[in-house]
Amino acid sequence: MESDPTYALDLNRDVVSLTADLVDVPSESFQEAPLADAVQAALTGREPLRVTRVGNTVIAQTDFGRAQRVVIGGHLDTVPAHDNLPHRRADDRIYGLGACDMKGGVAVALRLAAQLTDARYDVTYLFYDCEEVASEHNGLAKMADSNPGVLAADFAILMEPSNARVEAGCQGTLRFEVRTTGSRAHSARSWMGENAIHNAAEILERLARYRAREVDVDGLIYREGLNAVGIVGGVAGNVIPDECVVTVNYRYAPTLAPSEAEDHAREVFEGFPVSVVDNAPGALPGLDNPAVEAFVEVVGEPPHPKFGWTDVARFSSLGIPALNFGPGDPSLAHTQGEYVPIADLHKSEDSLRRWLVG
Amino acid sequence: MESDPTYALDLNRDVVSLTADLVDVPSESFQEAPLADAVQAALTGREPLRVTRVGNTVIAQTDFGRAQRVVIGGHLDTVPAHDNLPHRRADDRIYGLGACDMKGGVAVALRLAAQLTDARYDVTYLFYDCEEVASEHNGLAKMADSNPGVLAADFAILMEPSNARVEAGCQGTLRFEVRTTGSRAHSARSWMGENAIHNAAEILERLARYRAREVDVDGLIYREGLNAVGIVGGVAGNVIPDECVVTVNYRYAPTLAPSEAEDHAREVFEGFPVSVVDNAPGALPGLDNPAVEAFVEVVGEPPHPKFGWTDVARFSSLGIPALNFGPGDPSLAHTQGEYVPIADLHKSEDSLRRWLVG
Repeated sequence: MESDPTYALDLNRDVVSLTADLVDVPSESFQEAPLADAVQAALTGREPLRVTRVGNTVIAQTDFGRAQRVVIGGHLDTVPAHDNLPHRRADDRIYGLGACDMKGGVAVALRLAAQLTDARYDVTYLFYDCEEVASEHNGLAKMADSNPGVLAADFAILMEPSNARVEAGCQGTLRFEVRTTGSRAHSARSWMGENAIHNAAEILERLARYRAREVDVDGLIYREGLNAVGIVGGVAGNVIPDECVVTVNYRYAPTLAPSEAEDHAREVFEGFPVSVVDNAPGALPGLDNPAVEAFVEVVGEPPHPKFGWTDVARFSSLGIPALNFGPGDPSLAHTQGEYVPIADLHKSEDSLRRWLVG
Repeated sequence: MESDPTYALDLNRDVVSLTADLVDVPSESFQEAPLADAVQAALTGREPLRVTRVGNTVIAQTDFGRAQRVVIGGHLDTVPAHDNLPHRRADDRIYGLGACDMKGGVAVALRLAAQLTDARYDVTYLFYDCEEVASEHNGLAKMADSNPGVLAADFAILMEPSNARVEAGCQGTLRFEVRTTGSRAHSARSWMGENAIHNAAEILERLARYRAREVDVDGLIYREGLNAVGIVGGVAGNVIPDECVVTVNYRYAPTLAPSEAEDHAREVFEGFPVSVVDNAPGALPGLDNPAVEAFVEVVGEPPHPKFGWTDVARFSSLGIPALNFGPGDPSLAHTQGEYVPIADLHKSEDSLRRWLVG
């Protein structure tokens, strides 16, 4: 199967053409096999790579005998298509599903994997699946559980779209429910009941009044946020509702431990029951790490804080400093009109190459 | 078909047994035909009744030649069963689906129809379908449209559960949506958007602060209510929501016209778009009408205001004074454990009989 994939990738094509080729291989989450087959086939047999595969994750490792190893990782999957396939090239951009998130980044990593016959670090290239769906399916998370040795490294770079700038660390994300109760009654005799939706006024008030912190970490300003992302209440059009649930998302600076984030949530909503839905720790930027310093220096621009949660936190939790560095604007991810600027593709590839080969 | 119904009703049985028999004929809305067949067959051929049928509504009219005509109406349908069939007799009550709402009342009306060979008023007995579902299906509403002459009367009594007391008139009911908007953004960069759920804080505040009016009409105190009956907002767990909709139910005193109720809603939620979902006018108690006065006097207890909207409003809108008078506690309607007290059945039957035959 792997030796005769449905799609063939030519890694000798320039990074722009390769990005376009990758966009045109559909790889919605859970359907990455054809793309993983193509990536595996394209990398297999190229010196100095040792290529292995676990599920739909393809691993290519160099063995230059260097003192330090770095991971360069990218996910193969995309969100579902939305009339945005195949790719389209216009205005010095590649448009199409996943162009920004993150087939441009995958193209850059594949180019480096195929072309670098030597480097100042050993490199583990990781092309994994199911990043766009629930964490339990995430190829990187599964690897951390089943084959943590594969992730062993001194430093990791994830090709997450970040405008071809260094976006360091990431914020944590806590989702929780704040609940009000009441008692049902016919709405024609509302005084016999207690309205749980009216009781939620105070919760929304506190949210509306809340002023989010801005936290300085290594000179990067992480801007937090506490936001209702859902509210639901009501039984029927003639019933006083006995429950209202507000779902809140707290994006917190990476200096906060997950338990501290939960404490803060309970403090803000004191007097109301709070139940945690999920909580993923952030990642500290780790800008004082020498390998990170060297990379930032090569890129030649000051790093920025990463606001969205990314898989860098998985490396961080393994004690491996990690940062985001990929082509494309993160705010375009998952939009129908997503694209990657061609300039970003070249800039990403050049920066990584200069850093790796010196 | 009508001469050979699936179920047979014996109208010579006492009102308690007849109530139990009626409970045991399933008649969920839209499935009233077997019960309508049985009612029609049981009434047909009894002097002095003229029995006709329109759809699943059975009409039985006397022709005593009296100067005044009264309607005694009850609906045949029930809400869906909920493990509460067949009937059960215990604690001087008949339990079972529809016992309270309103087969007890139907039993009382059927007994009168079958037994009174003379009365001080001519009587139109109406047994209609689809009261428990959307207004467009309501048998009484359809009759008002297609055969308004059938409803012509000087006074109407609906057998709605009202603890065998007179509950006069009914409040109007307006349902409307109040909406907030915002703009979407990734919740990790919430400052790029505007949170529509947070914007709804002010709506819930106004609802929580609202003090409902109590309106005196003919000495009856109609207690209004303005209540959220639903709230919904949210796009996804990581998205700042751009819309939040609060559904509000305003139960208003029958002195208010529907348009005045809408004006009030827009006034309370000034600054927010308000869109009406539905609006049904109330019914004035009409206690100064001589026929109503006579009935209240026979019952021998002061009348109460009706809070829930009932079909009396349909008579009211035709200019016919109407009131609710039936066995059973209205707050038990639509509950799994609904029942009708046997004492209520006797009291209802006796009051109506005394009023009709003097």
